[in-house]
Amino acid sequence: MRGLMMDFPLTLTAIFNRAERLFSKVEIVSRRPDGSLVRQTFGEFHRRTRRLAHALRNAGIQRGERVATLMWNHSAQLEAYFGIPLAGAVLHTLNLRLHPNEIAFIAKHADDQLLIVDDVLLPIYEKFKDKVNFKRVIVVPFCGNPLPAGLENYEDFIASASGDIEPPQMEENEAAAMCFTSGTTGNPKGVLYSHRSLVLHSLAEAMVDGCGIGHHSAVLQVTPMFHANGWGLPYTAIMTGAKLVLPGPMVDSESILDLIEQEAITVSCGVPTVWLGVIAALEKYPERWKPRRTVQVISGGSAPPESLIRALDRYGFHLRHLWGMTETTPVATLGGLKSDMRDSSEDEKYRARSKQGWPAPFVELRVMTESGVAPWDGKAYGELEVRGPWVASSYYEAPETRNRWAEDGWFKTGDIATIDADGYLRILDRTKDMIKSGGEWISSVDLENALMGHPAVREAAVIGLPHPKWQERPLAVVVLKPGSEANTGDLTRFLAAKFAKWQLPDEIVFADEIPRTSVGKFLKAKLRDQYADWKWEQK
Amino acid sequence: MRGLMMDFPLTLTAIFNRAERLFSKVEIVSRRPDGSLVRQTFGEFHRRTRRLAHALRNAGIQRGERVATLMWNHSAQLEAYFGIPLAGAVLHTLNLRLHPNEIAFIAKHADDQLLIVDDVLLPIYEKFKDKVNFKRVIVVPFCGNPLPAGLENYEDFIASASGDIEPPQMEENEAAAMCFTSGTTGNPKGVLYSHRSLVLHSLAEAMVDGCGIGHHSAVLQVTPMFHANGWGLPYTAIMTGAKLVLPGPMVDSESILDLIEQEAITVSCGVPTVWLGVIAALEKYPERWKPRRTVQVISGGSAPPESLIRALDRYGFHLRHLWGMTETTPVATLGGLKSDMRDSSEDEKYRARSKQGWPAPFVELRVMTESGVAPWDGKAYGELEVRGPWVASSYYEAPETRNRWAEDGWFKTGDIATIDADGYLRILDRTKDMIKSGGEWISSVDLENALMGHPAVREAAVIGLPHPKWQERPLAVVVLKPGSEANTGDLTRFLAAKFAKWQLPDEIVFADEIPRTSVGKFLKAKLRDQYADWKWEQK
Repeated sequence: MRGLMMDFPLTLTAIFNRAERLFSKVEIVSRRPDGSLVRQTFGEFHRRTRRLAHALRNAGIQRGERVATLMWNHSAQLEAYFGIPLAGAVLHTLNLRLHPNEIAFIAKHADDQLLIVDDVLLPIYEKFKDKVNFKRVIVVPFCGNPLPAGLENYEDFIASASGDIEPPQMEENEAAAMCFTSGTTGNPKGVLYSHRSLVLHSLAEAMVDGCGIGHHSAVLQVTPMFHANGWGLPYTAIMTGAKLVLPGPMVDSESILDLIEQEAITVSCGVPTVWLGVIAALEKYPERWKPRRTVQVISGGSAPPESLIRALDRYGFHLRHLWGMTETTPVATLGGLKSDMRDSSEDEKYRARSKQGWPAPFVELRVMTESGVAPWDGKAYGELEVRGPWVASSYYEAPETRNRWAEDGWFKTGDIATIDADGYLRILDRTKDMIKSGGEWISSVDLENALMGHPAVREAAVIGLPHPKWQERPLAVVVLKPGSEANTGDLTRFLAAKFAKWQLPDEIVFADEIPRTSVGKFLKAKLRDQYADWKWEQK
Repeated sequence: MRGLMMDFPLTLTAIFNRAERLFSKVEIVSRRPDGSLVRQTFGEFHRRTRRLAHALRNAGIQRGERVATLMWNHSAQLEAYFGIPLAGAVLHTLNLRLHPNEIAFIAKHADDQLLIVDDVLLPIYEKFKDKVNFKRVIVVPFCGNPLPAGLENYEDFIASASGDIEPPQMEENEAAAMCFTSGTTGNPKGVLYSHRSLVLHSLAEAMVDGCGIGHHSAVLQVTPMFHANGWGLPYTAIMTGAKLVLPGPMVDSESILDLIEQEAITVSCGVPTVWLGVIAALEKYPERWKPRRTVQVISGGSAPPESLIRALDRYGFHLRHLWGMTETTPVATLGGLKSDMRDSSEDEKYRARSKQGWPAPFVELRVMTESGVAPWDGKAYGELEVRGPWVASSYYEAPETRNRWAEDGWFKTGDIATIDADGYLRILDRTKDMIKSGGEWISSVDLENALMGHPAVREAAVIGLPHPKWQERPLAVVVLKPGSEANTGDLTRFLAAKFAKWQLPDEIVFADEIPRTSVGKFLKAKLRDQYADWKWEQK
């Protein structure tokens, strides 16, 4: 028997309309490329976004068509987040850190009709413009330079429309946004988010146990909005009427700390490497920043070293580690302690907080081994699989990737993981990063996070390299903190307290930096290339 | 274009399964009718609930059939909340405070197949059993007395099944629960909640800006679970893994305060009259209770007097006033201050907190006047209408009530309201309680709440009575605090500071108590009956 409840679709339009009526005085603060801050209210944001939607309709954009953005985090990107779906179209955020050829492939594969691009990013556009065929290119003007021929000014574009049209009535399962994963193998793959998935994801993030974002929060959006819906926080902030601070291109540690202090930030987000940098800055200038309130730091993308969580606590930053992927909108787990751990030791609490959290409501996790679904015992490991209302059911027009979904529909993440009896997920490695040594597996992530707990180590990455006897053996690449010293023997002894002898890296090399992916994670594929000719010393 | 996200239904089953895996150690505390406390874990709750579902299937209960409960708030009622929907059936909570004839009408109208009833409530059952035809009656045993012939023991019933069956795969729009509104006119009307509506409502309540319930909360469920889904808090507590404390039949002020202190409660709920009683107890025994943490009090059902909110604050209780109805699952608005009011005066903040809040995400409100939708100006008043994903689209098998929905599908609440520029709803009166005096309207609620701000007044209700010249004029019925004194002149002078002369009650009468509805609200229909023969003195 059907319930007798209204058929009310869960759409971004509903979020947008409500915020317009309720939160018109809340601030949105954007840093421009020249470093200046621009303040607007939700009221202005809504008026401009309605105009953008109207102008897109006037430009002939049809329901379901893709509109691309190539932008930093600022108010115009936020206008695109809502204005494009409001027009009935699909927001497609291009990742400006990818190779221009890759951007071109993605834009063509998505069949993007129109591009909105920051003028300061036109040099990137120039590199791929001959490989794509946008009908129109709209440029957000920051620096005041005249635009190249054929390109249009974003301010003129939105000024051309009144915004006074009724948005189309969307079904909740219609597409609203699209992001591509920047996989290291094969072509990039598109994930197509529905209104429903983004709405439910926002509700989960607005939970006390989610990202803790409410109407009285002030959110600093460090995570790029071109990456995995900016982890969903822009939608959640607009839904709850939280103040939103967008740092533009300036996401260096000092700029982040300046904004946190000046704008009384309560929630921020970013990959662990961002917060490693923030800690380095706080240690370098111990008197410079005095945040007024505890800052909740949403971190994901890779596992934060326990030492980072401890260091952040000392400075009034509380890190919540969530796990997710572009394919999961992205937040799939909630971090934090279970209530029965209230009386646990500090060490136990930090250990739990370093894990990858427990499944969010309506997200289901399982670990698949060769003999079936693994028990939740914290030991049995295998490939992590996930399902839920904000998990991708397939990639966009990529039938060759069908094998990424199990026969019963679960998504295969490509991560090797365990789940313990409390429900905590622990990612041991990406399938391809796990080191196979003499028939046993070694977790590169565990070694890295232990190394980053050494006081002299700033960053560490561990890769498996071919070995004539053991198949693979671990090599650690370490970046020391400025002014610090440590040698291979020091670090190996440090690790030996936590790992079995056969798990220790056979060699530790010191480097100036570790290559990064477009979203700030360690780029191990490149490291493996760098050390492709490595010869192990005979031991 | 459809998004490419998984088709994952939003069901209570998903909430139940996740809580089973994640929160097995969390406590559920129930007070039995003899006053003793029983503790169980989510683990035990889940095992028993699976058995209940299994036993219902064995009993032949079919998908979509209604199973009734007649119970106080305790763990078996919670088992019914999840076990009945888990069996694919519909939980129908009977309101034990209604007249037995009315209960019989409701159970027959709903076609309830089976009843689960507390043994201490069998005297009520005896009064209507001849008018209903349940196939089986299952009795929750508390007092140890032998059961009347033909009735079955709940413990035996659930022990007869292993619980080891797979629940049916429900669609999210299938019915999960049913409540009847105890209207003062016409027959009671059934509201049929879908899994989807209960799930979305739970997500809204788990928001920072909702009821603020998270995994670390301890919730005291004062609101009867037989009334409007217990305001949804039982579902939200299980979803978030919050500790849940169920007070059984003992909801007097002292028992409530004992539980709040002993169980370290952080969130509770109840109509304003409950909290008026709590304040009276705190004033009577100022040293007796020392709550350890601030208690968030979710209040609804009627407007709390501002004086109540102030008094609760002094004792460490923070009242959040939410508005809703049985037809809205029930929470339709969020309470609390807007962020731009942070620097407002204390008086302004209390005034805002006394209003009925602003619409929850995906709930839409409008005020209809004779000339169409009213502006949000805090002045234009008319009937409040509402729509959203957890708002009823019709009553259960009651085609004669079709006029309660506007032609475009909005639900007509029967409340007279304004909405101000900040989005705050203010309910002036039920349509039928508004006092029409000489062509102008007088709000009975405003007068009542002002009277309850007088230090000598414990409770006050205002009704309109026929008047030969003015059509209707207000009469106030006042209950004084024990040991306090005030006369008509005192109270009229007190009101005169806030109201125009023509709005003041023509008469104030003093009484020992004010009649209540089954859910603790003032029963004005009965008051009007009592004073039906009232003769105004000529003035």
